[in-house]
This record gives sequence, C-alpha cells and structure tokens, in this order.
Amino acid sequence: MTSTDKSSGQGKLFIVGLGPGPDKWVAPEAREALEEADALIGYKPYTDRVPERAGLERFPSDNRVELDRARHALRLACAGRKVAVVSGGDAGVFGMAAAVLEAAETGEADWRALDIQVVPGVSAVLAAAARLGAPLGHDFCVISLSDNLKPWDIIVRRLRSAAEGDFVIALYNPASKARPRQIFDAFELLRELKDGATPVALARAVGRADERIILGDLALIDPGLVDMATLVLVGSSETRFIPRPGGEKWLLTPRSYGAGR
Amino acid sequence: MTSTDKSSGQGKLFIVGLGPGPDKWVAPEAREALEEADALIGYKPYTDRVPERAGLERFPSDNRVELDRARHALRLACAGRKVAVVSGGDAGVFGMAAAVLEAAETGEADWRALDIQVVPGVSAVLAAAARLGAPLGHDFCVISLSDNLKPWDIIVRRLRSAAEGDFVIALYNPASKARPRQIFDAFELLRELKDGATPVALARAVGRADERIILGDLALIDPGLVDMATLVLVGSSETRFIPRPGGEKWLLTPRSYGAGR
Repeated sequence: MTSTDKSSGQGKLFIVGLGPGPDKWVAPEAREALEEADALIGYKPYTDRVPERAGLERFPSDNRVELDRARHALRLACAGRKVAVVSGGDAGVFGMAAAVLEAAETGEADWRALDIQVVPGVSAVLAAAARLGAPLGHDFCVISLSDNLKPWDIIVRRLRSAAEGDFVIALYNPASKARPRQIFDAFELLRELKDGATPVALARAVGRADERIILGDLALIDPGLVDMATLVLVGSSETRFIPRPGGEKWLLTPRSYGAGR
Repeated sequence: MTSTDKSSGQGKLFIVGLGPGPDKWVAPEAREALEEADALIGYKPYTDRVPERAGLERFPSDNRVELDRARHALRLACAGRKVAVVSGGDAGVFGMAAAVLEAAETGEADWRALDIQVVPGVSAVLAAAARLGAPLGHDFCVISLSDNLKPWDIIVRRLRSAAEGDFVIALYNPASKARPRQIFDAFELLRELKDGATPVALARAVGRADERIILGDLALIDPGLVDMATLVLVGSSETRFIPRPGGEKWLLTPRSYGAGR
C-alpha cells in the first residue's frame, strides 16, 4: 500500500513482519517502521522482540485476541498515532495483516481512509526451507492446520487437493496444547494419499536457540514430535534427501519434474 | 544448513535471496554474506544489484544457465573461495538453491562436503501481498507457469488441484517472450474452474520504479497485461476487495472460512 495517503491526519499504521526470530532476518523496512512508530501492538512474544526506547508506548496482548488488537491499532492510528502492529514471520501469512483489514472492512469509515502499510518479512516456511536445503525448488502449498477459524472439512479438502496436485506441503500452526489432534489426523490422511517414502521435515524454531530439525519419511516420522513452533514440510513425489559426508542430509525438490521417469 | 562445517578447506558457498528489488527488503544476513564473499555469481540483473567493492570478483551470467552457474560456484568454493550465488526474491523459491543442490547431488564428492548456507529472502509473493493488503491471510499455493523444466500437464494438474482446494493461487514466471501462451492457457482453465467474480491482482515489479498494479476479476482481467516481472494472484472463494475512500482498494482473504454462508 502507498505511504502517501495522509487523508486521516498524521496517523499511520504499519503492519510489520519480524521474521522467524533472529535479527538477521528482520528486513530494513521493518526496522525503519519500528523506529518511526510511537505505539507498538502485538502478541507479547513478538512485542518482546522490539527493543524498549523512549517514545515507544507498548501494548502487548495475549494470543487469540487478534481483532481486539486490530481495532485498538486502528483507533490509535485514527487519533494520529504512528502505530506498529507486529507479527512473527511475514505479517501477511496467517499474521496480523488480515486481522487489521477485516476490522477495517466492517469498522468506522475513517479506518478505511487510514494510511496502512504492510511491511513484508521472511516467513517461517522460507527460513525452514533455507535451513533444510532447497525443498521449495518447485510448486508448493502453505496450509494452516488451525481449525479455530475454519472448519476441519476445508483443511481436509485442501490436504487432499495438495496431495492430488503433488505439491510440496508446508503446514503452519500444526499443533497446540488446545489442538493436539490435528497433526495426527493430517498425517493419517497424508499417509493414505501419498507414498510412505515421501521425505518429511519437522523444522522447529529455525534460527533460534532452541532450534531442532527432524528428518524422516512420511510413513515413519512421529507427529507427536510436532509442537506450535514447528514448521512441517511434506515433500512432493520428486523431493529427496541428498546424503552428505558425516551423515548430514540436504532436502531437495528439483526444478525439473518427471525427469527420471 | 549449519555454517560450522569446514570439512572442505576454507571455502564457503552462500546462496542469497536479494528480495524483489529495493534495498529495504534485503535482510541483514544477506548483506553480511555479500560482504564476506570474494566471488559473486548470478544472473546479471541480480549481480548488478550488489555494489562493486575491492576484493569481490564478479561473474555475471545469462539467464537459463543455472546449472553451469551452480557448478562454477561449487568449483570455486571447493578451491577455497567464499562464493555468493544470488537470486532475486528468495533463493529457495524457483531460485538458485535448488540448482546448486542438484549440481552438488550428482557432481564431485567434495561438493557435498562443502559448507553451503542458504540465506532466505522476501519472496515476490510476500512483497506483492503486502503491497495489495492481505490476500494471503488464508491457505495458498505457489506455482511456476514455466514449462522449461516440467511438462505443461503437471502445471494443468496443479492449477486444477489448487482450484479444487479453493486455495489462493500465486503464479510465478507467468510469461516471457519465449513463452507468451501459458498465461492465456492458465486463465482459460481457471475461468472454467472458478467463479468469474474471483478477485485477481497483477502485481508487476512491486517495490521498483516501474511498479504497476492492476486489479480486476477473473472473468474480465486481461492476461495480455502480464509479463515476466508480474506476480499474478488469483483469489479463493473468500477473497474480496475492500473499497476505500478515493477509489483505492485493499485485497483481503480473511482468516476465517465460510463464515458468511
């Protein structure tokens, strides 16, 4: 969105993707938006990543109050504040960008006149892929397993379609304490639909101190090892491991398709 | 991949995503890799984005010689050089990461012992989404329309599956001078499979001086406006435009699914 729209006073709303964790993945535009802001809004683990400074008022909030958070941000920006709403990864991928625009769509007319700038970031799937090698060298799907806001039926339909299309599949929000079953149900379905030898990666907390990478194949890998911080990647029929000296492996989905058939 | 593997001398190979164009989207890790490198390899429009400096030897190349470029990089790194191979956007998404690992997979054993670090970047789909609003608030697919390395049949199969799964669809490499037909064929197919009122965005050169955004619906938008620099986004059944004062629009795929039915 343009940053030239000043129709609503001096207020401005940045929606900022902070990347998956480390500072090395925070884009300069995100850093600049956080420096320009005078109000910081987001889920507390994300606001905690932004250094304290004079002139930046902080409004950390709990999880699962995205629309309240969005309306709060829109109100502050309409009152002339420069507001940064932060998400982990990219704010557009299952992040706060959609929540803010949903709130703006049905809220006060002034909210739709606001200067809103979405600042893209490195999404979790890109960081995980980089860590693993090149699993996204070909077409892929990104699916959230959370059924908080969508019926499980649509998730099943999408997993089926993704398998039918032989996409590489990236699963976000695969499990939480409140939703421990989805990842088991998803693996049960994918095991019916895809070859058991399909490579799978469980990439937890990539780039952070508690990073943990587990590689295996679809038939044998344990979905019980997946938690909320895990990005799950399930290969296409072309995805394979490349063995390396010392026992390490790279994960590759080649750019060509069907070359070996 | 870890940066601690020194089994192959002092050489190192970075595979770096430069983002979609402007410096504001180049992550600090990418900047650091470019500063550490003594050899720069890539398609010339991408190497041109890296400032000249003493100690950095440049090897710009033509398009469509990815494997030659990859082998050159692997050889230099094996000889002890610190090599940066650059891609636009994210190097893992239809970029050089897969080409380098393909070359390493079948090449000399030393190549698989190399310290290779993939540095993630802001992919074109994320930058386009941020510019447009929040079109990726829900599940999505990323498909390259290039049939240089895969049969058109698999592209058709994936477009069908993406439509059946009601994914938001991002199309990379939608057209080139050598491949002017694919985008017309893809739109013909998508118009059969999806509602004609589905929102579509043609996001060309986002973040660059020659940026051009065209919004419309699937039935009426002209695929003739799509070129190689365009990221095409086709909505799901939930994707919609939010009208704004002054005639601008945001594009939104809400986080919920089926709420209005």
